[in-house]
Amino acid sequence: MKIQSRATPRVLSGMRPTGALHLGHYHGALKNWVRLQSTHDCFFFVADWHALSTQHERRDDLEKNVYDMVVDWLAAGIDPEQATLFIQSRMPEHAELFTLLAMSTPTAWLERTPSYKAQTEADREPATFGFLGYPLLQAADILIYKAGFVPVGEDQAAHVEVTREVARRFNRIYGAGQPILPEPQELLTETSRLPGLDGRKMSKSYGNGIAMRDTPEATAEKIRTMPTDPQRVRRSDAGDPARCPVWPLHQLYTDEATRLQLDEGCRTAGIGCLDCKQPLIEAIQREQAPWRERADEYLNNPKQVHWIVEVGTERARAVARKTLREVRSAMGLNY
Amino acid sequence: MKIQSRATPRVLSGMRPTGALHLGHYHGALKNWVRLQSTHDCFFFVADWHALSTQHERRDDLEKNVYDMVVDWLAAGIDPEQATLFIQSRMPEHAELFTLLAMSTPTAWLERTPSYKAQTEADREPATFGFLGYPLLQAADILIYKAGFVPVGEDQAAHVEVTREVARRFNRIYGAGQPILPEPQELLTETSRLPGLDGRKMSKSYGNGIAMRDTPEATAEKIRTMPTDPQRVRRSDAGDPARCPVWPLHQLYTDEATRLQLDEGCRTAGIGCLDCKQPLIEAIQREQAPWRERADEYLNNPKQVHWIVEVGTERARAVARKTLREVRSAMGLNY
Ligand code: SF4
Ligand code: SF4
Repeated sequence: MKIQSRATPRVLSGMRPTGALHLGHYHGALKNWVRLQSTHDCFFFVADWHALSTQHERRDDLEKNVYDMVVDWLAAGIDPEQATLFIQSRMPEHAELFTLLAMSTPTAWLERTPSYKAQTEADREPATFGFLGYPLLQAADILIYKAGFVPVGEDQAAHVEVTREVARRFNRIYGAGQPILPEPQELLTETSRLPGLDGRKMSKSYGNGIAMRDTPEATAEKIRTMPTDPQRVRRSDAGDPARCPVWPLHQLYTDEATRLQLDEGCRTAGIGCLDCKQPLIEAIQREQAPWRERADEYLNNPKQVHWIVEVGTERARAVARKTLREVRSAMGLNY
Repeated sequence: MKIQSRATPRVLSGMRPTGALHLGHYHGALKNWVRLQSTHDCFFFVADWHALSTQHERRDDLEKNVYDMVVDWLAAGIDPEQATLFIQSRMPEHAELFTLLAMSTPTAWLERTPSYKAQTEADREPATFGFLGYPLLQAADILIYKAGFVPVGEDQAAHVEVTREVARRFNRIYGAGQPILPEPQELLTETSRLPGLDGRKMSKSYGNGIAMRDTPEATAEKIRTMPTDPQRVRRSDAGDPARCPVWPLHQLYTDEATRLQLDEGCRTAGIGCLDCKQPLIEAIQREQAPWRERADEYLNNPKQVHWIVEVGTERARAVARKTLREVRSAMGLNY
């Protein structure tokens, strides 16, 4: 096991368990995690409590979703010797810090979170207290590990800001000038927003995704049946990549030289759409091959996956307990 | 140690740690606890997290307040062989259930709690998320022990109703027809609201209390200097007990025959106020004597008090963990 030096800045990131991951997850987050694990002390966790705050009906699949996701993390190249992998719901410490932070956090800070506002305005389902508290639970997730950095997508910047405010107020009330809970920074990283098979954002709920572990045949079939430029009805019609949902995938997967050729072929009807899709299919299959290979190993040995999570959870717990002791002590609860 | 049979209904009650208790606490709650412990499986706890939800500035005294209160419980006759005594902040299990219940509890149920409404309208301090969540944390406190009964004062009935609603909704969403978290009942019990030395409700914050452990001298001095019927200025003026703040104490402490004599003596100026107060002073001193004696024993042996709390906390934890396992399993989190 690699021992991270104290100087290595800690990164915390979580992912909701939505089951087997798709290419959008990989290019939007996982690829970045893999990159970070060798330079940072990475704590990656399955945010299964967060999943409950909005979708409490899907509980039957939860366990399967959790482990399918962890397998995909490992398949993508997350190295459990470098990164600490764990499951939120196995950490009552997060709930305890959440409860303690609640005592000093104004409700108004949580009510003004954009995602809360959006849901309460849009949805007929009554917003739960857990949903209102989502950014505070997220603050607890982050602060309990004293993470220095949190990789963020565009829509999460507000949550890290809340975390900082929560920490600042806690430190002011209980810290007596000492920053007990350090304020984390956002880690802005280049990620790619992958379009799905229908041109919308790739998302499990749209059913427009290519799974990381799709077979070569399934991947080929999905790309082959993708809609293309709607004005290119016949093989002899000229097309325009700018109108084609396949093209953004090329921009991620094929090299510039190939793209120049395909663009030319499309505009002149020199190639058919299947010709155009073939290099894309192959590029994705090439990307998937090592994932499937690694995933198969783990799937044949589920005990190993459980063990990896077990070790990660205990490693995380040691850090979490230490922070909790400091927090309780600052609050006068160390009896 | 007395083993409670399964058929013995469980009672749960908590008290905020406000330090040494006064007669109002005894007659308003503790007396009832002492009565209940022989007929019910009583779980009594120090609600120290709840104390933080509204007064996070007084943390320096917290530990002393907690143990002073436990000593007063024991002094009053709470028998640790019969009842289970523990400290809320030592039970991360409560925080975990609080967090899990948050996922299915509409925020609106908590916003309409009378105490929340009152504070948000009255106070300039921003209401915290913990204060909004107070009734839900209370629900977790109760439900985690599957308590059948909760002794209530007038102002707490709404909280038990919230607890029932929280349990009902949880059971409906996650229980598949099984009542995983039984709905508790209110235990309406006769308690006396004790007036303080100034006629207002006896309360630590008014500084108008007689502590359970006040010395006989202190008690005598406090009663002797109490204001009486404002119209009885001189010894020779006739008075009226109905106008006298001392009288409600007589109604609690002296027998009917004595009261008849005193009433007559007051109205005819046959007795002086100090004569009238003397039987009251003696009655309170008689009540306090065994408390002080027991308290002294415990104060001379603080390790024993810690040990009692330790045993109670572990006993409570065993029950709490069992419930949490059932809850997690119902939510699909048993991995
Ligand atoms: S040739 Fe390629 S870019 Fe042009 S329409 Fe067909 S799939 Fe789209
Ligand atoms: S005699 Fe007793 S009841 Fe009457 S005014 Fe004095 S203290 Fe009050």
